[in-house]
Amino acid sequence: MNYAILAVLAGVLALLYSFWRTIWITKKDPGTEKMQKIGSYIAEGAMAFLKAEYKVLVIFVIAVAILLGISGANTTDSHPLVALSFIVGAFCSGLAGFLGMRVATKANYRTTNAARKSLSEALAIAFAGGSVMGMGVVGLGVLGLGGLFIFYEYFFGFEGDKVVQVLNVLSGFSLGASSIALFARVGGGIYTKAADVGADLVGKVEAGIPEDHPLNPATIADNVGDNVGDVAGMGADLFESYVGSILGSMVLGATFIPVLQNIDGMGGLSAVLLPLVLAGIGIIVSILGSFAVRIGESGNPQTALNRGELLAGILMLAASYFAIIGMLPAEWKAPGILTGEERIFTANGVFFATVFGLIAGILVGFVTEYYTGTGKPPVIQIVKQSTTGPATNIIAGLGVGMQSTAIPIILIAAAIMVSYYFAGLYGVAIAALGMLANTGIQLAVDAYGPISDNAGGIAEMSEQPPEVRQRTDKLDAVGNTTAAIGKGFAIASAALTALALFSAFMKQANVSSINVSDPNVMAGLFLGGMLPFLFSSLAMGAVGRAAMDMINEVRRQFTEIPELKAALEVMKKHHGETHNLKGKDKEIFEAADGKAQYAKCVEISTKAAIREMVMPGLLAVIVPVLVGFVFGANALGGLLAGVTVTGVLMAIFQSNAGGAWDNAKKMFEGGIEINGKHYKKGSDAHKAAVVGDTVGDPLKDTSGPSLNILIKLMSVVALVIAPLIK
Amino acid sequence: MNYAILAVLAGVLALLYSFWRTIWITKKDPGTEKMQKIGSYIAEGAMAFLKAEYKVLVIFVIAVAILLGISGANTTDSHPLVALSFIVGAFCSGLAGFLGMRVATKANYRTTNAARKSLSEALAIAFAGGSVMGMGVVGLGVLGLGGLFIFYEYFFGFEGDKVVQVLNVLSGFSLGASSIALFARVGGGIYTKAADVGADLVGKVEAGIPEDHPLNPATIADNVGDNVGDVAGMGADLFESYVGSILGSMVLGATFIPVLQNIDGMGGLSAVLLPLVLAGIGIIVSILGSFAVRIGESGNPQTALNRGELLAGILMLAASYFAIIGMLPAEWKAPGILTGEERIFTANGVFFATVFGLIAGILVGFVTEYYTGTGKPPVIQIVKQSTTGPATNIIAGLGVGMQSTAIPIILIAAAIMVSYYFAGLYGVAIAALGMLANTGIQLAVDAYGPISDNAGGIAEMSEQPPEVRQRTDKLDAVGNTTAAIGKGFAIASAALTALALFSAFMKQANVSSINVSDPNVMAGLFLGGMLPFLFSSLAMGAVGRAAMDMINEVRRQFTEIPELKAALEVMKKHHGETHNLKGKDKEIFEAADGKAQYAKCVEISTKAAIREMVMPGLLAVIVPVLVGFVFGANALGGLLAGVTVTGVLMAIFQSNAGGAWDNAKKMFEGGIEINGKHYKKGSDAHKAAVVGDTVGDPLKDTSGPSLNILIKLMSVVALVIAPLIK
Repeated sequence: MNYAILAVLAGVLALLYSFWRTIWITKKDPGTEKMQKIGSYIAEGAMAFLKAEYKVLVIFVIAVAILLGISGANTTDSHPLVALSFIVGAFCSGLAGFLGMRVATKANYRTTNAARKSLSEALAIAFAGGSVMGMGVVGLGVLGLGGLFIFYEYFFGFEGDKVVQVLNVLSGFSLGASSIALFARVGGGIYTKAADVGADLVGKVEAGIPEDHPLNPATIADNVGDNVGDVAGMGADLFESYVGSILGSMVLGATFIPVLQNIDGMGGLSAVLLPLVLAGIGIIVSILGSFAVRIGESGNPQTALNRGELLAGILMLAASYFAIIGMLPAEWKAPGILTGEERIFTANGVFFATVFGLIAGILVGFVTEYYTGTGKPPVIQIVKQSTTGPATNIIAGLGVGMQSTAIPIILIAAAIMVSYYFAGLYGVAIAALGMLANTGIQLAVDAYGPISDNAGGIAEMSEQPPEVRQRTDKLDAVGNTTAAIGKGFAIASAALTALALFSAFMKQANVSSINVSDPNVMAGLFLGGMLPFLFSSLAMGAVGRAAMDMINEVRRQFTEIPELKAALEVMKKHHGETHNLKGKDKEIFEAADGKAQYAKCVEISTKAAIREMVMPGLLAVIVPVLVGFVFGANALGGLLAGVTVTGVLMAIFQSNAGGAWDNAKKMFEGGIEINGKHYKKGSDAHKAAVVGDTVGDPLKDTSGPSLNILIKLMSVVALVIAPLIK
Repeated sequence: MNYAILAVLAGVLALLYSFWRTIWITKKDPGTEKMQKIGSYIAEGAMAFLKAEYKVLVIFVIAVAILLGISGANTTDSHPLVALSFIVGAFCSGLAGFLGMRVATKANYRTTNAARKSLSEALAIAFAGGSVMGMGVVGLGVLGLGGLFIFYEYFFGFEGDKVVQVLNVLSGFSLGASSIALFARVGGGIYTKAADVGADLVGKVEAGIPEDHPLNPATIADNVGDNVGDVAGMGADLFESYVGSILGSMVLGATFIPVLQNIDGMGGLSAVLLPLVLAGIGIIVSILGSFAVRIGESGNPQTALNRGELLAGILMLAASYFAIIGMLPAEWKAPGILTGEERIFTANGVFFATVFGLIAGILVGFVTEYYTGTGKPPVIQIVKQSTTGPATNIIAGLGVGMQSTAIPIILIAAAIMVSYYFAGLYGVAIAALGMLANTGIQLAVDAYGPISDNAGGIAEMSEQPPEVRQRTDKLDAVGNTTAAIGKGFAIASAALTALALFSAFMKQANVSSINVSDPNVMAGLFLGGMLPFLFSSLAMGAVGRAAMDMINEVRRQFTEIPELKAALEVMKKHHGETHNLKGKDKEIFEAADGKAQYAKCVEISTKAAIREMVMPGLLAVIVPVLVGFVFGANALGGLLAGVTVTGVLMAIFQSNAGGAWDNAKKMFEGGIEINGKHYKKGSDAHKAAVVGDTVGDPLKDTSGPSLNILIKLMSVVALVIAPLIK
């Protein structure tokens, strides 16, 4: 139990760090009045979205909590307290999103202001903003899981066989985290892409306004979108991955209790506590790593981020070796979790599983970088195919996306087999956890991106001199490789965590074999495999409809607001170049300032996102329950296997196709030479590449990343209902 | 054994029918000299492709046959004769493609000529051409399988336990059929799309030549493509489905031998022979049905086709009831094929399984029609989204394709569960066979389409008066619903056949459970699930590269052949309207006649298709062998389950997305009203729809249909190597 308390303390430490950095940021100079005004628009819009979203989610949480409470009371293996776990999990997830976004919307314009002076100062603020999010997520995750675990242990008593019940009840926490995450990811994804597409199609393409220009009514919504999608959505996403991988390892670790209780000196709990301890260590090394992220004016932000991540990674590897060797016995014999056959487990084996998981995750990241990176053969292939028009660009992008699944899947399959070889299913779960232990700093780097992006938008809208925008662009441009490796970890760990949760489900549902040739299982496999397709189509349809709403609103403002209309004419006359207007044109232009009704656009995006997130979200929760109760645990097992396999595949396909299209478009922006011919920005080939990028947007930012959550959420739902259907 | 002989006789009858119709067609008036010349270009091009393809395949067949012979000699459950089965299967598949294509390339220009006189005569010839293909496929299938079965029974002896060995050896036939089918489908698909895209992009778009115009050097290749892709490719495809479903049912039927041998009066073989008998009945009802396909001048070809199919369907249902009740005992008790638990089987149950399979297949067809049909909501959705450009058109099409997987998968899952409920795994296999028993007439209808399409092309190239083209267009326009239902059967039966073959594999490999939570199985599941993605990307990449070759060749001819260059100038001057040229323009135009080097384009398409078909084809054969031998039967089982699930999903997604894009484009061709605005042919919205159609082409005609073969081929490979890895 002491170990659990130590982990909880690390969680508290993370929250304190978060709190300290928040205060530090708040004290920074908020910049000019205009910056502050724009910043507050964005902050208000983002908070308005969260408020609207949480209003809906509260109903969902209460409804599910009641059902969980009732069902928990009707089985001996669970308890009504599962409802409490669920509520706490959902609350922590929501809180992590809220805290992260609040600081992000404070950090963004302060970063802009700092960029007026120096790159190093701007990096410091943007990264501090990201690290508040990162540490908040891991802090709340460890504190919530560890705190509840300790509480339940005291509540239910310390006998070994009570731990299974404790973990059943605790699984509600993961369910809360995952369901909120899915809604947040889907809702945020719809919001950000609807605003983005709306701002681009009407603003940039139809009206010819430059990106992030204050005349465009959707521009604030677009920047709000970066926060609700890329900050709050991603935070909730990683929160659920983190919590899911810890819980999955704990449940599988519990199977060793009967064997370990006389040898590990912790009443057999060593394998259960190890995941919490590893998570705690991850927090501490993340904090240490984050201190290494700093540069001078001429320094490269990429180097700084890499230094921080690398330091944290090496420390984690070393510390986890000692934690594993220290906590687990050197060797023990136990029946395989599902097969029942005795095999030998070793502490070294568990460590090797972790190492191999890390290697697989890093390699998946490099493959991701290869398939989506600017200047790499696949992206160049798309660039070349853009010269014969949008159709060949799309075909090439689809091909690249599909092909990019091959090596990551081989790596994931190898990771499963190797970590199983070294430490059974527990090894698979620990390998997944190993990839996510450094979520603290990983997420800090991820969230730093949208903050820098926002800072650039604010620089543009508040009409700062070009060198400010150049500095924020420099911040924004880096972190791609780091983000790619983060994605690799997210995908690989999702597959492994899903497998761990799947085994945990089988264990709790008392099913020893999900036989593929059983027609119920095969039917489940087909149904499960279909869900990511249906889910993606719903998400894409939602983005389409929401974007339409936005397009209509922007068009309305452009025709109904006379000042905007006049300013647009001026802008057209000067081909978008409005920095040196004179005389009457300048007057007209200045009269339009502030006339765009940003709030309307924010409201439309919010409403559309909230409305559209409900269907796909409910689908993920209801289908496994339905299949489990109607067709039984075997069909449900098939469903989980199906959704995991196609979910991982579709996630990789969609994310990488979208990423590759995005960078193919970017390669045209500075002009490019292909087969001896020069193509500049605005050429037909560039336009074809823009089509690909637009197609890729909902794939890579809405449906793709949601699928990682979908597969884990469905597994957790199954795990929670397992005691009821066995 | 008498039943097997009856079935073989039905096969002979089908071949006689085929032969008779071929002679009938050959005697028809071949039309004007120009028609004959164009017809012979197409026929020569098609035969040149087949020749080149078969040259490569012979090497493949010999190599695999040697391996099979060696491996067959080294296991007691198989025999070197498996190599003979393989060679015969491959030969029959190749022969079916050859015969079908030869008659199709005779029927096409005779249909054009008949269309000069009447619609009914043209329909008769086009349908007769299709029926030669249809009857050839089923005749060779039943004759080959039935003949070999009888031969092996005599060779190995009639003891009950010898049948398992006989079926192991016979599975080589299915392997031969499937591997040739995959190469033919992929090669044909690459050929036809490379020619199509090449002809369209340079000819129609760049040079402004109307479709099928003799000035376009790729136009003959385009028409050859219809034959090698849609006729020969589809023939080989259905041949393998047909053979696979018969063989799968026979293998599963063999498990009943110990129970049935004292009660069915056929030495226990009733359940083994039933599939052959059902196939034989299917041949006879198909012939009867084909006599019902005839119309008068004002009649609707659709009605005629429907009448034929419906008649055959009703007769089949009635006859199969009597066959099942007549051959199988009313009730018998047997252990479940894989579970080993005793259950009761009934003849009625087997019949109900068949009926439910048919219903599911028809419903899948209607859903296909709904998602891809002109004027239906999904296609209208794509049409609407085309008004905001190609990007939204693509997003909408991807969404429609993904969404369209949902109901078919639910139907397939239901078909699996219900037919299993009624008659176990044998019921699942028989349900699949039930959908394919009428392949004779179904394929006749399918192959009638490309013949009519070709006839239209020849009418255009030989400069016939417009009413001829109108008649052939009328022929070509129908059969969509019939084709959609055919597709439904193909998809649903592929899933069920794969499951049957999968169970047959498990039975022969002596594996009683493929447990999803076994890490080897899970790894296999991931790898298998990835293959359809990799395979599709290879196919799409191949089309892209082959099309590039074609584009470069057409561009070369347009610049290097002075007569063509001059004629193109004339055509540009008259905006493509060249029917009433006068004076010098007419002279220039006529001078270009016959200058386009069609043969060059045919050669390029051929070379590219042959080159590009090898990789994806080998992938399908080598991967299961590799996984089976290296990681064992369990991992191979996982691989098969994975490839089946994502293969079916990707096939539905790609086929339906492609079909929907195609029809969305067609809806623009006559001009269309959307939200009160009129969009005509050539508008930006139409151009956006053309982009979607081009993207859909390789999806629906190359990779999508190949996936159905891929999943069965991999299952058959596993079945064949099962005795070696158990």
